[in-house]
Amino acid sequence: MTDLDACLAFTVEIDKLKSVERRTRLINDPRNENTAEHSWHVATMALALAPHAPEDVNIDRVIQMLLVHDIVEIDVGDTFAYDEKGHEEKPLKESIAADRIFGILPAETVRQLRGLWEEYEAAQTPDGAFAHSIDRFLPILHNYHTDGHAWRQHAITKSQVLKRNSVIERGCPPLWPVLLSIVNDAVAKGMLIDA
Amino acid sequence: MTDLDACLAFTVEIDKLKSVERRTRLINDPRNENTAEHSWHVATMALALAPHAPEDVNIDRVIQMLLVHDIVEIDVGDTFAYDEKGHEEKPLKESIAADRIFGILPAETVRQLRGLWEEYEAAQTPDGAFAHSIDRFLPILHNYHTDGHAWRQHAITKSQVLKRNSVIERGCPPLWPVLLSIVNDAVAKGMLIDA
Repeated sequence: MTDLDACLAFTVEIDKLKSVERRTRLINDPRNENTAEHSWHVATMALALAPHAPEDVNIDRVIQMLLVHDIVEIDVGDTFAYDEKGHEEKPLKESIAADRIFGILPAETVRQLRGLWEEYEAAQTPDGAFAHSIDRFLPILHNYHTDGHAWRQHAITKSQVLKRNSVIERGCPPLWPVLLSIVNDAVAKGMLIDA
Repeated sequence: MTDLDACLAFTVEIDKLKSVERRTRLINDPRNENTAEHSWHVATMALALAPHAPEDVNIDRVIQMLLVHDIVEIDVGDTFAYDEKGHEEKPLKESIAADRIFGILPAETVRQLRGLWEEYEAAQTPDGAFAHSIDRFLPILHNYHTDGHAWRQHAITKSQVLKRNSVIERGCPPLWPVLLSIVNDAVAKGMLIDA
């Protein structure tokens, strides 16, 4: 197989991400979103919010990161944000999935994309923390604009949302006060439990 | 409205792209894809194929272009690749849609993203032609891997495919012989009409 054939085989393989369902509801349509369309949404949100990123963020690396950040879900599915047991088992399973899926690509591209995925997961670098912040903030927007759909379904509390999303305070500081205001309004409207 | 609020309003608005249906079938699931998940797929394909892009292509600009290349479909819907009448009416309608949708953003970001969209549409610069080539090639992969689903449905001929996709020969030269080989095999297997 040539390097180009390997890239095309990867392209065909990742079509499967369109069949991975998330818990998040579309804002204007009564169905849950899938991970492929979410990945587009979050990458495009990062592009639109670039002027609000911290100065040391490279938005192009962030976008690349967000394009591949959930590709492992082809093998392991989506883990709901507030599923604590699910999150304990996640790293090993996802690492095996990353080996298989990125491994379809030529060696140099594997290193590049797997590296971006690992940096996203760690959320320690400015790019990783910004990407993580955008990815955490977007479902909050979805929940807020669907009358708290997934929050109500799973009886989520305000303190769970604040704990889960604390990365936003350092990853994209201008979004933090917006998050607090959304969360407080969501509590007032009964979308989130006040605890 | 602050600039940040405008970026978030844009983020909420573009969720609608997940409800725009294309003619292309998913490779592993019996439904047509939507434009949001297609936009993710094509941007990620560009990232994977970056080593095969012409030397003067800036892959980060290409990815940004592909993230926003179909956003106007929120207002005008998808035009089928081989609908000649639909393509005549497209430019004016899409330009009005671009004014409205990109116009939600702060002025500087409007200029940047609308500029990328126009460069994609013109397909004249190396970045625009490469982005266009990737966007044209991907549905060919889909059709080939779904036994010619949309080709058969609309009785498409080999010469229509070659004419419609000729940009690939200059936009991403290494893909052209792959396209010819796929098209010839598709004719042999009855997916495309030999005319």
